[in-house]
Amino acid sequence: MKPDPLGDWRRTHFSTEIVPELSGEEAVLMGWVTDIRDLGGIKFFILQDIRGSIQVTAPKSKVDSEILDKIDSISKESAVGVKGKARAEEQAPRGVEIIPSEIRVLNPAKIPLPLDPTGHQKADLDTRLNSRLLDLRRPKSQAIFKIKHAACQAIREYLISNGFIEIHTPKIVRSATETGATLFPISYFEREAFLSQSPQLYKEVLTGCLDKVFEFGPIFRAEEHDTRYHLNEVLSTDIEVAFVTKEDVMGVLEDVLVEVFKKVKQKCSEELKVLEKEIEVPEKPIPRITYDEALDKLEEAGKRVRWGEDFSIPEQRELGNIIDGAYFVSDWPADLKPFYIMAHKENPKLSHAFDLLYDEIELASGGTRVHQKEVLIKQLKNKGLSPKQFKYHLKNFEWGLPPHSGWGLGIERLTMALTGARNIRECVLFPRDQKRLTP
Amino acid sequence: MKPDPLGDWRRTHFSTEIVPELSGEEAVLMGWVTDIRDLGGIKFFILQDIRGSIQVTAPKSKVDSEILDKIDSISKESAVGVKGKARAEEQAPRGVEIIPSEIRVLNPAKIPLPLDPTGHQKADLDTRLNSRLLDLRRPKSQAIFKIKHAACQAIREYLISNGFIEIHTPKIVRSATETGATLFPISYFEREAFLSQSPQLYKEVLTGCLDKVFEFGPIFRAEEHDTRYHLNEVLSTDIEVAFVTKEDVMGVLEDVLVEVFKKVKQKCSEELKVLEKEIEVPEKPIPRITYDEALDKLEEAGKRVRWGEDFSIPEQRELGNIIDGAYFVSDWPADLKPFYIMAHKENPKLSHAFDLLYDEIELASGGTRVHQKEVLIKQLKNKGLSPKQFKYHLKNFEWGLPPHSGWGLGIERLTMALTGARNIRECVLFPRDQKRLTP
Repeated sequence: MKPDPLGDWRRTHFSTEIVPELSGEEAVLMGWVTDIRDLGGIKFFILQDIRGSIQVTAPKSKVDSEILDKIDSISKESAVGVKGKARAEEQAPRGVEIIPSEIRVLNPAKIPLPLDPTGHQKADLDTRLNSRLLDLRRPKSQAIFKIKHAACQAIREYLISNGFIEIHTPKIVRSATETGATLFPISYFEREAFLSQSPQLYKEVLTGCLDKVFEFGPIFRAEEHDTRYHLNEVLSTDIEVAFVTKEDVMGVLEDVLVEVFKKVKQKCSEELKVLEKEIEVPEKPIPRITYDEALDKLEEAGKRVRWGEDFSIPEQRELGNIIDGAYFVSDWPADLKPFYIMAHKENPKLSHAFDLLYDEIELASGGTRVHQKEVLIKQLKNKGLSPKQFKYHLKNFEWGLPPHSGWGLGIERLTMALTGARNIRECVLFPRDQKRLTP
Repeated sequence: MKPDPLGDWRRTHFSTEIVPELSGEEAVLMGWVTDIRDLGGIKFFILQDIRGSIQVTAPKSKVDSEILDKIDSISKESAVGVKGKARAEEQAPRGVEIIPSEIRVLNPAKIPLPLDPTGHQKADLDTRLNSRLLDLRRPKSQAIFKIKHAACQAIREYLISNGFIEIHTPKIVRSATETGATLFPISYFEREAFLSQSPQLYKEVLTGCLDKVFEFGPIFRAEEHDTRYHLNEVLSTDIEVAFVTKEDVMGVLEDVLVEVFKKVKQKCSEELKVLEKEIEVPEKPIPRITYDEALDKLEEAGKRVRWGEDFSIPEQRELGNIIDGAYFVSDWPADLKPFYIMAHKENPKLSHAFDLLYDEIELASGGTRVHQKEVLIKQLKNKGLSPKQFKYHLKNFEWGLPPHSGWGLGIERLTMALTGARNIRECVLFPRDQKRLTP
């Protein structure tokens, strides 16, 4: 079927703006056809758009036969425009329907579809991701990305109103910030370069001039993990602040977390309902325990972790159960943390690093950074890294780089906590893992 | 010199918050030392922070000799904390100074410095970029990034309040959207992948579910250009809207541009003053001419461009002079535009593409997109591209992808227009070009 042209039609109303009070008014609606029924004397379809849906009702007695033929020709999930009049009708969903005077099929869908976007027929995640466009018409998928959108805005608004300056640091870089094993190599003209694992080094330098900075940007890790918490490209919010220690930026993170939960609860009540998810705004202060205290708590619960080892997901889940909700774990063994984290003065085996966890997920990590060049060189060497490779970075430490601290927050993991999504892939429009490079 | 610890000191005031009315109050300030003078009986230095600067005055008669010794030991651009009392003093800049009771040198700078951040001594762009941290302490450099920050916020606020949903599309991709010659290859595990040239294909698909979307993100072009308008990694704002044509998204772009100029003029008057830049908010409607009309105008001005050729920078400058300020050029020869732009029905040599120019710079480009699979396959082939390579993308066109239109706006070029910066490298914190991969 040849599609109808859009012509001069433009949407006058979203579906949910059609309310019984508008009865008699003309409207042009644009969206997708999700359900078509023919009851003999009357034909119906449901038009879905980004806000919701509306019933389009064509009684044989009231509309032209052209319209009835058109409805017969429409396949589910086709993009259509509908011009017509609103009519209050108790039996229609939300008590209102549209009686069409003209329908334009703007792009017909080819049937059969690989996926049922109404969600009535369950599909596994692979099928959903392979037909992501259709999957993203499912109200549950849309709810996740509307909540992610609201979370990003809430974080940004908080940071901006607290004097942070937005930065954009290069994603094409020369050196690793975390471990060299997880770098993606790039051919940069004739030179060797990599995809950035985090804005760490750049944001640290920028505290020496812009004072308080934040970035929203992609980070890349060539990890071969196949877990429901890992992907090779994710969105990270990073902050870095001059003249403060980890305790101060833990305070900022606490505020950000509370703000996000509060705003999402306020603005996304419909989306949370669609997801059947209730969220509780964390109360301040968010519990803060040290790594050593966490070990004690786990031991009390019958889970023994040897000092110096990282926690597994089940151990984090146990901690989440004991503490309930969000909590900080600080003062980690230095061996578990990157070279740029400051060590304790009295016990260099301990570091001024912290993680923010929510139930079983690590949402963020940060710490007080080293700001003295000699100390940083020593720590680079301790980690088996070559100070030569960090020549450009190290120069900055001779130019009055202040004491500074910061963190990175994983936006998709935060979205999992907010939406109840069980797999990080549900929180990324087009996820990247070892298997998945398209669509 | 061993640095002093930050300890429990925290900034109580920014420099510019110290006003004569605070005389007698105690304050802790944090920042960088930009100027040190010793007049015998009295020593001074200027403490700079992100908001401005304040004079710290140490009269021998009033401060401990320890403090005087400390001041003698400070090198310019060291990071310091100063505790002291504000004192109204007519002879001091802004009529107020700080009499220090304690000074902490948090990170001493190593002299000589490669650059004078006060800007008194001129430095070329290469020197500045090689010591970017020091360069970014120059008030002019800071002004550029504060204006860029304000511009990003203005755009985002406008789009969000107009119903756009924020998206984040992959930067690791399988195929070109512009020309294959400008792709950076990545080793993605055992597979071939590239850095994304634009979110084009993804954002188009997302109009089929999220309706109106926007993204702020890096785009990567392996261009070997060495001009003052090109870099290999820049920040782009992209929008894409369902059920509309280019005229509609030109309206959005017009609103965005006016909003940005208005907000920057309002919020960044200090920064514009530092840059000695006056900006005029463009008036609506922003002039719209077609490619053919632009050719006529250039010919009238004595510059002949052959039909089908792109404009050079001098030709764009000429048009900017004739039209004055911002202007749209639309309906370009199809051969000059990418495969996804819709051609004119009556004359397929013309396309529904537009550029937004400001004086001599192209700020944005966009257009009405093809939404029919068969047409897109034809246009791919016309450009010498293989539809097979776009298999995953083409599938989406069978699933009711609506008519749609959008644009991409170069944030650094916009920043050039707002700040008067003459080289795009001045508008990127750590620019990437063929020569420059670090810092």
